[in-house]
Amino acid sequence: MRLPRSLSRLIESFERLPGIGSKTASRLAFYLLRVPQESLEEFAQSLSELKAKTLTCSICYNVAERDPCSICSDRERDKSTICVVEESLDVLALERADHFQGVYHVLHGAISPLNNIGPEEIFIKQLMVRLESGEVKEVILSTNPNMEGEATAMFLQKKIQKLNKEKGFTIKISRIGLGLPTGADLEYADEMTLSRALEGRREY
Amino acid sequence: MRLPRSLSRLIESFERLPGIGSKTASRLAFYLLRVPQESLEEFAQSLSELKAKTLTCSICYNVAERDPCSICSDRERDKSTICVVEESLDVLALERADHFQGVYHVLHGAISPLNNIGPEEIFIKQLMVRLESGEVKEVILSTNPNMEGEATAMFLQKKIQKLNKEKGFTIKISRIGLGLPTGADLEYADEMTLSRALEGRREY
Repeated sequence: MRLPRSLSRLIESFERLPGIGSKTASRLAFYLLRVPQESLEEFAQSLSELKAKTLTCSICYNVAERDPCSICSDRERDKSTICVVEESLDVLALERADHFQGVYHVLHGAISPLNNIGPEEIFIKQLMVRLESGEVKEVILSTNPNMEGEATAMFLQKKIQKLNKEKGFTIKISRIGLGLPTGADLEYADEMTLSRALEGRREY
Repeated sequence: MRLPRSLSRLIESFERLPGIGSKTASRLAFYLLRVPQESLEEFAQSLSELKAKTLTCSICYNVAERDPCSICSDRERDKSTICVVEESLDVLALERADHFQGVYHVLHGAISPLNNIGPEEIFIKQLMVRLESGEVKEVILSTNPNMEGEATAMFLQKKIQKLNKEKGFTIKISRIGLGLPTGADLEYADEMTLSRALEGRREY
């Protein structure tokens, strides 16, 4: 069966998305056949306007509508605490938790020698420039607790320690808490998580 | 964090798709931020052109580029055997199997009293019109093996039997084979599947 070209092109577009296989792509495209044209146009417009109407904040490098972004330009946020994350999506997740009052720095990746991503490829230099101003009191390293994220956190720790020494700064360096997630079952947790959870225990 | 409007609109569009939750929607939208503008435009175009460039075949009611569709207008296909399915996607799946040489009839749904879908809401009348021509020798009922699909198959069986009686036709009515799928583990199969598999046994 030769599918109509417009349908097969849409399936191909969906297939290119991460985590969407060919069956899901077909299912989505066939679903859209029944959606009002208006919704399709809306979807199409949001796709073609996506990049034209977004930019990167020149302070924290998060995705934003204007520069500086709504967080960096918010007077209520504590500019002396920077939470360093790998992706914009991480900022979104942390903001949803609604607990952090400081500002962010988005690295846009993590150091990963296997994928040829060195410290130069991600926004580390830009973080160091921010720290050199001398106004930052704490950096919370919130990269992911996997190999790349840990390597990045370690690299940043050394780099900030060196800056502290050279400039006589006292920037506090912390790592986001690692341990059991809420709702988890201790018996199903892996060894690494349990080791980290024990290390990260707090007085009760 | 207020997301840029173009980004949140795209997330909303993704969220409206079946099986895509808010986290997947965000992940997809952020992924697309890094895709070349050209691919975004292509995706957008295939969305807005989707319906304008597809139509429904006036014979089998499958989605098609022209009318009649490529299957109905194919001289090599056996017009005397009609495989009745619920959705266009089912035709796609059967065509992938590359085993069936007849033609199809797409019902665009199944009888489902719970969802207020009666025989009038799906393309049953159109199937009966095709059968009344007297040129059809066999109808393979290939609706899904669930409650709605079985009810639809049963309804069609009675309807075709009645037609056979009234017009003196001898249209053969068959149900697509039900049983264990290839690669399945007998011990994990549910009772219904096993009962059907035993009923549908064939001489070896």
